[in-house]
This record gives sequence, structure tokens and C-alpha cells, in this order.
Amino acid sequence: MPKIGLIRVLTTSDTGLLETHGRLMMERFPSLQVTSRCIPDHPSGVHDEKTERTAAPLVAALAVEFEKEGYDAVIVSCAGDPGVDQARRAVSIPVIGAGRACAAVAMGLGRSVGSLGITPDIPLAMSAVLGDALAAYVQPPGVHTTLDLMTPAGAAALDAAARDLKTRGVDVVALACTGMSTIGAARRIAEVTGVMVVDPVMAEALLTFEAVQLACRPV
Amino acid sequence: MPKIGLIRVLTTSDTGLLETHGRLMMERFPSLQVTSRCIPDHPSGVHDEKTERTAAPLVAALAVEFEKEGYDAVIVSCAGDPGVDQARRAVSIPVIGAGRACAAVAMGLGRSVGSLGITPDIPLAMSAVLGDALAAYVQPPGVHTTLDLMTPAGAAALDAAARDLKTRGVDVVALACTGMSTIGAARRIAEVTGVMVVDPVMAEALLTFEAVQLACRPV
Repeated sequence: MPKIGLIRVLTTSDTGLLETHGRLMMERFPSLQVTSRCIPDHPSGVHDEKTERTAAPLVAALAVEFEKEGYDAVIVSCAGDPGVDQARRAVSIPVIGAGRACAAVAMGLGRSVGSLGITPDIPLAMSAVLGDALAAYVQPPGVHTTLDLMTPAGAAALDAAARDLKTRGVDVVALACTGMSTIGAARRIAEVTGVMVVDPVMAEALLTFEAVQLACRPV
Repeated sequence: MPKIGLIRVLTTSDTGLLETHGRLMMERFPSLQVTSRCIPDHPSGVHDEKTERTAAPLVAALAVEFEKEGYDAVIVSCAGDPGVDQARRAVSIPVIGAGRACAAVAMGLGRSVGSLGITPDIPLAMSAVLGDALAAYVQPPGVHTTLDLMTPAGAAALDAAARDLKTRGVDVVALACTGMSTIGAARRIAEVTGVMVVDPVMAEALLTFEAVQLACRPV
């Protein structure tokens, strides 16, 4: 049974919160055994250039720790992919970033990709993969955290943003924040737009499922 | 159990040959039920602009037929993605092309992608997704069909091409022909390069597995 190390870039001692993404992954792929750990010193997560920079070496260090303990692959479960490149240089097992994974799966499913997130700009990790296929990125007005999405005003703003993407004719939507995975945002947006909505936690799970298969080959 | 319609662009009455890709998919994803059909009038497959053009409407017609019969998704099992756009316009169920799928999975797994195929150029369906991430495309010298790969000279040329990609520092390889899926090329190339090798039939299976999940949501 492949052992997957999942890295959260939000420092927390709340085990339930820490393991949210891993639980979603294992529900979908029961053959994966996911262990979640978080980086230190980032109680408000990674949300700007400074926190992204300070997080990167801590992510790479956790990846090294997982590899030393015999894990088969590492996931960086944040759509900004903080530290993914550093981690890939530091270990020889596959390293999957939520941002690249989500964008990549959307590219495979459609041709004109819309994205929806809670930051002013789409993460570079995603726009780098999407290139010209990115038709539109929308941040619902007034929504800055996933908690905002759970208020009536936030939910209405999410619906409006989804309708906005629909009018632009996108044929697939890529969510740009893993926090949206846990609150059912993908389903809601799929209902409004009528197109497939790729969720970053499900996308990282899918690519990890493939990566451990490929990496398990005797090389 | 999701019903998947798989379209071969090689006209054949040999059921074993027709069902090769579908069998590989079902071995990997036993939850998918794959039915294979081929387009008419293309006994030598799709191998140039003319055959690509004549194949497209036939692919779309088969997609419509699968949709009418209640299938949940359609695969065009050729790395050139002939007729994928036409089929997507013709049906409302997901349509997955081997080329885009293979390129997309590679983008999720690595940053610098090498590709290896049996045509002078990488299919447009793949290069469009890979963009600047495509570090190199190699056609093994003297190899023009998958049969060539199975001769001692072809196998040696394949190994040399894989070593060539390795020297270019790619961190993932995307195979550019579904015919390479059936002859174990991915494994051989992985052994030589030491990096993950994405196989188009496995990639189309992976994205179809995700697509039917997303499309099964009530929209």
C-alpha cells in the first residue's frame, strides 16, 4: 500500500484540521495511505510572497523527512505550490503540488479553462501550466478566506462568480485554493456552470495515484 | 459502473486488436466498463493531415452514437486527438483525448517534459498543452511504426532516444503514440531515464476516471 506524505503549509495542532485533505484523498483512493504533517511557524498559512519564501525550505525539509521514513510520494497540499520545486530537488520520490495538479487535470479535461479562487491573482503555479488556455480568473467580491465563502453573502458571491465564468464559455473550471475543496465549492460551482469543476485536493490525489504507479516501476 | 466508449481511429475487424487499449484501462481501473469501437474507412489509421481530417467527423459520429446509448464518457484513443474538438462540440458527456491527457498528466508530474514518439513531430494536441515545458521531442532513428520498436534495431534506437532525453535533464517523459502503450515502451524508457514515463493509454484512463466522477455530479 503506497505511503503518501501530505504537507500542509498551515501550522496547526488541530489534528482534525491537519488531516482534512488526507481524509478526502483516502475516501476517493482507498489504496493510498496518507499521513499529514504541517510546517512550523506559519499559523496563518502561506498567503503572500514573504510567507511563500519562508515556507519553501520548511516544505523541502518535511519532504526529506518523509523520504527518509520510506514514503513513496509527497504532496504539497496548497494551490500556490510553495516549496514544490525545492522539495523536488531535495528528494528522489515524486513530489506533487496541488496547484500544478489542478491546472494539469483541467488541461486534460477541457480547452478553455476558468479559474476561481480567494486571492486577487491566480497562483503562478497554476497560470504557468494553463498558459493561453486560461480564459478567466475570478475572485468572488468580498471573499478573502474560505470562511467568507460559508456566509450567505459569500455563497451568493460564489454563485455570481460561477455565472460570470459560464458567460465566458469556459468548458472546465479549476479551483485555485485547497480550502475550497473542503466546503463543497466544486459541487456548487458545477451546478451553476454545468461544466466539470476540478478540485485541487482531488487533482493532487489523482496525480499521486498515478505517480506512485509510475515510480514503483523498477528503475 | 461508469460506461466508457473508447474510439479507435484504426479500422479493424480484429477484436483483440480493437480492444487492446480498453483492456489495459480496465486492468488499471476495474471500476470502468470500457467498450471499444473503431471508425470506418481508415485501415492504416490516422497518420497525416488528410487522414486526420477525414477521421474527425467519423470520430464525432461515434461519440454521438455512444452518448445516445447512455455512455458516461468517450475516449479518443490516439495521441493526435483526431476529432476530439468536433466530438466535444457534438456531445455533452466528457470527451478525453489521449494526446491532451498524456501531456496534461506529464505537466502535473514534472516541470521539464521530454517526449518520444514515432512521427517526425510531436502531435499538436500535445505540444499545445506542453508549451514551453516541452524540453525535447525525439523520434528514434529508423522507427516509424510501433512494429519497428519491436525489432532489435528499433529497441536499440529507443534506448538511445531515452538516453538522449536523459542528458537533456527532463524530469518526466510523455509518450506520443498509443501504440507504445501496448509494447511496454514506458517501462523500458523509465529504466533508462530513471524518470516517470507517462503512457497515453494510462493517462486517458486516469483522466476518464476523474471525468466520470466530476460529470456524475448532478448538474
